[in-house]
Amino acid sequence: MIQYCFGIDVGGTSVKLGLFEVEGTLLEKWEIPTHVSDGGKQILPDIAASINEMLKQKGISKKQVEGIGIGVPGPVTVDGVIDGAVNLGWSTFNIHEELNELTGIRVKASNDATIAALGEMWQGAGKGYKNVALATLGTGVGGGIVVDGKILFGFKGAGGEIGHMHVQDDEKEVCSCGNYGCLEQYASATGIVRLANRALTKSNADSVLRNQEVLSAKKVFDAVKRGDILANEIAEEFGRYLGMAMANVANVTDPEIILFGGGVSKAGEIILEYIKKYYVKYAFQRAKEIPLAIATLGNDAGIYGGARLILSQ
Amino acid sequence: MIQYCFGIDVGGTSVKLGLFEVEGTLLEKWEIPTHVSDGGKQILPDIAASINEMLKQKGISKKQVEGIGIGVPGPVTVDGVIDGAVNLGWSTFNIHEELNELTGIRVKASNDATIAALGEMWQGAGKGYKNVALATLGTGVGGGIVVDGKILFGFKGAGGEIGHMHVQDDEKEVCSCGNYGCLEQYASATGIVRLANRALTKSNADSVLRNQEVLSAKKVFDAVKRGDILANEIAEEFGRYLGMAMANVANVTDPEIILFGGGVSKAGEIILEYIKKYYVKYAFQRAKEIPLAIATLGNDAGIYGGARLILSQ
Repeated sequence: MIQYCFGIDVGGTSVKLGLFEVEGTLLEKWEIPTHVSDGGKQILPDIAASINEMLKQKGISKKQVEGIGIGVPGPVTVDGVIDGAVNLGWSTFNIHEELNELTGIRVKASNDATIAALGEMWQGAGKGYKNVALATLGTGVGGGIVVDGKILFGFKGAGGEIGHMHVQDDEKEVCSCGNYGCLEQYASATGIVRLANRALTKSNADSVLRNQEVLSAKKVFDAVKRGDILANEIAEEFGRYLGMAMANVANVTDPEIILFGGGVSKAGEIILEYIKKYYVKYAFQRAKEIPLAIATLGNDAGIYGGARLILSQ
Repeated sequence: MIQYCFGIDVGGTSVKLGLFEVEGTLLEKWEIPTHVSDGGKQILPDIAASINEMLKQKGISKKQVEGIGIGVPGPVTVDGVIDGAVNLGWSTFNIHEELNELTGIRVKASNDATIAALGEMWQGAGKGYKNVALATLGTGVGGGIVVDGKILFGFKGAGGEIGHMHVQDDEKEVCSCGNYGCLEQYASATGIVRLANRALTKSNADSVLRNQEVLSAKKVFDAVKRGDILANEIAEEFGRYLGMAMANVANVTDPEIILFGGGVSKAGEIILEYIKKYYVKYAFQRAKEIPLAIATLGNDAGIYGGARLILSQ
């Protein structure tokens, strides 16, 4: 009887692995280092060895395993082809085929931010919903869209890559992608610091954000909580662009709930106030009412999403 | 043996019906009036009677029919629930159930703009592609997204409703939806006339657009073709907002091709020049290269899409 599956989240420094019961219980969670040298050739064999070791340890046969769902930091097509993952040293190949050959177990792969949306839908803040949009606010901005319980892959596996939506016409600084005025320039951790530095230069107002050795998104929202006026202005700007972008995402994909994860979301519910204010302003009538919430699975979203991917697609 | 299916497109004045072979050949195409009086209660019975009549005429038994795919002017969930269609007088009910009961044939329904995207993918400008975004530029702006060969319904069936994406922060005139700066205000036939009137008022420049009794999107693009400078400025504005919006749609849904249909698209390839200029500026690197094209099925896109819907979903 099939009772188990694996959810795996491949990052640039470590690989997170989870052994799940098919009902959704996480039985074991562990990490192995990511060996990115030599074009990342060792990553999948390391994962296969670690899975085999766990199966042996638990006395589970491969016949009892539904499969392996794996998230990687790059676009993956619905057929498992990754078109390069810079952080891992990977070029183009088929993850499904390679990891299946190494393990003898069925494999489904997807982009890591996308798979996190599926994880949140299954066992996190999106539980009970089937149509979820997730914005991941980290060093950059990523995202994932789940429609009727399934990942929106898109043609090249770049579905839900919302970080480079155009939101601001007058931006003079270039984004990492080469364009100007991308969402990532305002809503990522880096983007918020950029907004803060810009506000501090432009204004002479008192602010607890002055005299900080290193600014961070967390410090900005901590200052907001303490009533800092300049920090409030920065949060307004963050909220305006992110709220508008998510309103546009909602118009295009019609979700039931919108979630916010990643490092910036650790500031908590306060970010939702600023996002919601503008989301409601810009969303189409029908979409104004849907809930916005903070993702709850944190770093485990990827392994939950991997498990759900192999169980559902 | 199953050999046939029906594709139906319900409009406010007439219902278009098509009898197809399952391979995609349109055998018969006809229209019946849409009776919108009495809450549109007669519309589905009229369709059922017309289908039965055609089957009788052709000597086709219901066992030979795969089903009926039907597009309607309103959002339809994946389960067939329409949440009202103002143009038809309809309130909320399940189209699948009602039309199935009337015909004894399996039914799948969707929004009319969305279903047109599926039709274009099957037998129109999107033939050979599986991931298609369509913008319908008519009196308003609608749209449809096809992902991996299937319609993106969304939670309430409003997937692909791109007309009310926010694209302009400084708009002072209100959109029909109550928001300000929606794509529809710049890229619909009505929106283009609005831009033209605004440009004519603002500028004193000579233009063939002056001294027109009635302005239209067609007249604007005709003037563009004749080298009219003011008309060119209007087309630039149209292209900027539509190009930017479609770049954002591409970032979110990762299509292989983007199509433009509806009355405005009858101006032809010239609209693509203006859209493409800004699309390429704003799209994410990976999406800059994908083709933009004019939809080719015209008013038949809906019946083709209906047929494809019942064959594929």
